[in-house]
Amino acid sequence: MSGIKPRNFKGTRDFTPREMIPREKLIDTIKGTFRLYGFNPMETPALEMLEVLSGKYGEEGDKLLYKLDYKNDRPRDRVALRYDLTVPLARVVASHPEWPMPFKRYQVQPVWRADQPQIRQGRFREFYQCDVDTIGSKEGFADAEIIALTIEMIHTLGFKDGDQKAVVHINHRSLLESLCEFAGRPSGDLVLFCRALDKLDKIGKDGVREELAKIGVTVDGWERLEIVMAMDGDPLEKLQQLSDSLPEIESTNRGIEELRNIFNLLISLGVSADDFVFDPHLARGLDYYTGVVFETVLPGQPHIGSLTGGGRYDQLIGLYSGRDLPAVGTTIGLDRIFAAMEQLGMINTDKLTVTEILLAAYSAEEMEIARNILTFFRQQGISAELFPGTGRMKKPFSYADKLKIPFVGVIGPDEIADPNDLKITLKTLASGDQQTIGLQRAVSFIKNQSIE
Amino acid sequence: MSGIKPRNFKGTRDFTPREMIPREKLIDTIKGTFRLYGFNPMETPALEMLEVLSGKYGEEGDKLLYKLDYKNDRPRDRVALRYDLTVPLARVVASHPEWPMPFKRYQVQPVWRADQPQIRQGRFREFYQCDVDTIGSKEGFADAEIIALTIEMIHTLGFKDGDQKAVVHINHRSLLESLCEFAGRPSGDLVLFCRALDKLDKIGKDGVREELAKIGVTVDGWERLEIVMAMDGDPLEKLQQLSDSLPEIESTNRGIEELRNIFNLLISLGVSADDFVFDPHLARGLDYYTGVVFETVLPGQPHIGSLTGGGRYDQLIGLYSGRDLPAVGTTIGLDRIFAAMEQLGMINTDKLTVTEILLAAYSAEEMEIARNILTFFRQQGISAELFPGTGRMKKPFSYADKLKIPFVGVIGPDEIADPNDLKITLKTLASGDQQTIGLQRAVSFIKNQSIE
Repeated sequence: MSGIKPRNFKGTRDFTPREMIPREKLIDTIKGTFRLYGFNPMETPALEMLEVLSGKYGEEGDKLLYKLDYKNDRPRDRVALRYDLTVPLARVVASHPEWPMPFKRYQVQPVWRADQPQIRQGRFREFYQCDVDTIGSKEGFADAEIIALTIEMIHTLGFKDGDQKAVVHINHRSLLESLCEFAGRPSGDLVLFCRALDKLDKIGKDGVREELAKIGVTVDGWERLEIVMAMDGDPLEKLQQLSDSLPEIESTNRGIEELRNIFNLLISLGVSADDFVFDPHLARGLDYYTGVVFETVLPGQPHIGSLTGGGRYDQLIGLYSGRDLPAVGTTIGLDRIFAAMEQLGMINTDKLTVTEILLAAYSAEEMEIARNILTFFRQQGISAELFPGTGRMKKPFSYADKLKIPFVGVIGPDEIADPNDLKITLKTLASGDQQTIGLQRAVSFIKNQSIE
Repeated sequence: MSGIKPRNFKGTRDFTPREMIPREKLIDTIKGTFRLYGFNPMETPALEMLEVLSGKYGEEGDKLLYKLDYKNDRPRDRVALRYDLTVPLARVVASHPEWPMPFKRYQVQPVWRADQPQIRQGRFREFYQCDVDTIGSKEGFADAEIIALTIEMIHTLGFKDGDQKAVVHINHRSLLESLCEFAGRPSGDLVLFCRALDKLDKIGKDGVREELAKIGVTVDGWERLEIVMAMDGDPLEKLQQLSDSLPEIESTNRGIEELRNIFNLLISLGVSADDFVFDPHLARGLDYYTGVVFETVLPGQPHIGSLTGGGRYDQLIGLYSGRDLPAVGTTIGLDRIFAAMEQLGMINTDKLTVTEILLAAYSAEEMEIARNILTFFRQQGISAELFPGTGRMKKPFSYADKLKIPFVGVIGPDEIADPNDLKITLKTLASGDQQTIGLQRAVSFIKNQSIE
């Protein structure tokens, strides 16, 4: 770059075609599911008034806001970069009191954090968030719908069977409160209690017992919890067992009732009972969520973290927007999903181009026809390119090979001998097979072979 | 927003579903054409090193860079927001010397300008750019391909006939140089000369004559120019006339030869001769473009500015990236196109949701079945919602009406009487027509009626 090294700001990434081709497809598939469920696209600016963002993400969050260095700013005119998609959502909803509720939107945009990036851990300063939320409905149906769309989306992406099977874990904040009380700890210990419980997968039962002992859970308390941990069966059965074990306090009743309703709704929406589990250990953002919480995991790939995470948060939008608006939603972990699909061989990050066929001509005369053929392929919906030079076929084949273009169509004197029946010699690069065939047949062949 | 007014930073916009639904469709259509022509998606970070951006946009541009207020920064570690998509492209290309050429990419991302916004004139501080470029090819074929894809894209969007017909104007920088000399002015006057010439549409022939007189074009010089302005015929004929009139200097020969090649290539790519014109008055970014220049206009809508603009710029990428890389590309004016389509009634900004059918049930019993029906519609690829409450139909109809959902499907006792032949009463809101039909027929009906 005219004397200086062309470097990126640390913690940001270029998405070159190699990454962007599968990434665009991934995002399109996700958006497609959102739309089927009646969620609508929304976008907000990267630049927000600092006063809109300040104080919404805690003291730590305030420090992580990227502020603009904009001269002559009065303090109230200062501007910062978007930190998440929830506060902007609250701002937009607050600006549109005329909108009918529920308001169902999805949003796929980057956010920024003025943090020390940890590239290997996948922590960036600039990264995409992908959120889908229903605002203004208290109904369990809204919760069930977000969970059902999560499962449908994750299935559509291919996380369906065997080692790639995804499962949604579901719990309820109120049941965590009951469990904490059941173990003999006051509600002030809820956060520590949940943090210990949530480590079950990582440190095992004995580890959790030790952690809980540290915060004062007695042997007696632990034995009661153990019964809960030993629960088995499908989500509704486990819920019944828990209901029978826990003290009949308000939080138990609320949690059991709401989850039972959600589980029944899921089944009546056609969700299979082996696609979700009731997981009384699951704890997510206790200062955020007020009801059901859920996340998507791959049981066959325990080293891969959760692919999505969400729940009901009835206080937040109201707090930010000044209107009492219950809300439920989920974040789709785009980067996590992309990495998982790459690791499990579910996407091809080998392709450097969307081009399906590269045409090449021997001489200027055939080049003229080759341009017509090029347009014909494009009109048939096939991404096509024409190698600009004529002559030996080494160069176009080398270009196709480097870019991983799957087909090369050679156009020589024999192929264009009959202007009413133009042909190409179609070579499949992966197999080396070649055939001289008519254009329409070449189109069908490519469409059938293309692995999308 | 908890005590403060929920305001946007001036010069930025929210895209609510009303705008985003047609906007996503517009962008998808444009990307689809790019892909057919073998162009590939790329994205770069919003945050770039300041030293990468500095000095690339002139003195004025440097002032318009939004810099981050990031403590402890050494000057060389300062960071700014992306100003355009060309410098990031040059940076990426410079970082990938291993890429085979030509490199064909498209990029649709926001850019930022620390400017006084003029909302009414459509000038924002944060706005999307949409660029498509071929790097590393000197061939006229690369130029022709960008023009051909512009025409195909604009046709696909509907700018094809009558008052909505779009035409691509094409010129060449070298011919402007020849014209300037032909009019008797030195090349130092080129910028002023072109600025006057380019005003023809706005101030008419007499206006242009006066402007040119101001920079010293004599009556004699003007008369020579008039002949050029009176040229008529298809692009190749006009080019021949110009070739016969202009002095045989190097710039004339280069311009004529390159344009003739491009026009012939366009025709052999199947572009109709009435979709592009040779326009010797067209002048675009003379400090930027080195060869062919072009833009898309709507002759039937003279008040709407150009929808796209581009050309060949052989110096820039090399200058920025340190490698000699010729380039040709175009910017698609997303906001301009969107506004034009809205104004000409080509897009619907009336819809508040993608939902095609809202289901509603009379009682809890029917609600159970309604959820199965909801899932059935979604499985058939129809965006569907279920109104959460039961009872009178006034509320769901009012919700559908407000959101402009085209169909409501009512599920009552008669509709579910036969579990093996479930029905809905499908009401078309626009016409008020209603019919009680089977689910599969309802799906077909909705798919046929939906105006995409």
